Amino acid sequence: MTVQKVIFHIDEISKWKLLLKNVANLLQAIDIEKYNIEVLANSEAVKLYSVNEELDENIDSMKKLNNKGVSFVACNNALMAYHIKKDDLFDFINIVPVGVLELINKQSEGYAYIKP
Amino acid sequence: MTVQKVIFHIDEISKWKLLLKNVANLLQAIDIEKYNIEVLANSEAVKLYSVNEELDENIDSMKKLNNKGVSFVACNNALMAYHIKKDDLFDFINIVPVGVLELINKQSEGYAYIKP
Amino acid sequence: MTVQKVIFHIDEISKWKLLLKNVANLLQAIDIEKYNIEVLANSEAVKLYSVNEELDENIDSMKKLNNKGVSFVACNNALMAYHIKKDDLFDFINIVPVGVLELINKQSEGYAYIKP
Repeated sequence: MTVQKVIFHIDEISKWKLLLKNVANLLQAIDIEKYNIEVLANSEAVKLYSVNEELDENIDSMKKLNNKGVSFVACNNALMAYHIKKDDLFDFINIVPVGVLELINKQSEGYAYIKP
Repeated sequence: MTVQKVIFHIDEISKWKLLLKNVANLLQAIDIEKYNIEVLANSEAVKLYSVNEELDENIDSMKKLNNKGVSFVACNNALMAYHIKKDDLFDFINIVPVGVLELINKQSEGYAYIKP
Repeated sequence: MTVQKVIFHIDEISKWKLLLKNVANLLQAIDIEKYNIEVLANSEAVKLYSVNEELDENIDSMKKLNNKGVSFVACNNALMAYHIKKDDLFDFINIVPVGVLELINKQSEGYAYIKP
């Protein structure tokens, strides 16, 4: 089976609503089994991964998308810059050391790149 | 003949002027016969595809670029979100069901991705 | 030796600080000998390449990254639009005729695309 792969890049908090809507629309159109979908957040965008943001209107959307198979990833440099500890993150968040390196690696593996 | 392919992505109305200038500059430098150039609009950016915007300063640029071979595409989810009907669109606008799926498919076909 | 390649795209002055931080974080994580890293500026972002901006807080970061091997490139159309002459540029800046064509060409050569 050929798997389609896509990485969504976000580095601005204000873009989360749009990004999550984009991903939700995508899921409605595809067979998720045939896709690898990753959301890579760096810079200030990682703040939404913190449990302190649990009342944010976007968190529920994020959790639903994760339950359907979408991977949410944080740049560790950004987490450190905003003093967010690993224990502060929702438990489904994955961490990579350097967000932009993840973007390079995934594209070299054939992932499409989308920046909402 | 090898054909170069590029998809321009826009989801903010405020970026239309810059995007259209980018595409116009590109056309002046290339042999359009050897390029497939697509502009994919989703989110609020689809509003500029409506005939109700015909007085917008960017519409004339868009029409000229289309006459030279540039394809303009709208995300249908975005059209529905902004209550824009197919009959409201300039007649050269193409529609795809899901904009981000178009971005994935085109990149998997070898299109470069540019987000002005 | 396999070389990884990446082109960073910037067209807004306000994004320089974030972009340069992204690139600096990347350099700390990789062996620069195995990477080609290019920063392509078009539109208003080219203004920061002018020696008249030498007091800008980002210039020092830019010079340090260039010393480590990062290439900084300007779109000539943008330079003309902002009346910036070749003699006004820092001497390590390279010029390409059309920024978006550079983005297409590099991606067709296997460069990953990142837009901070």
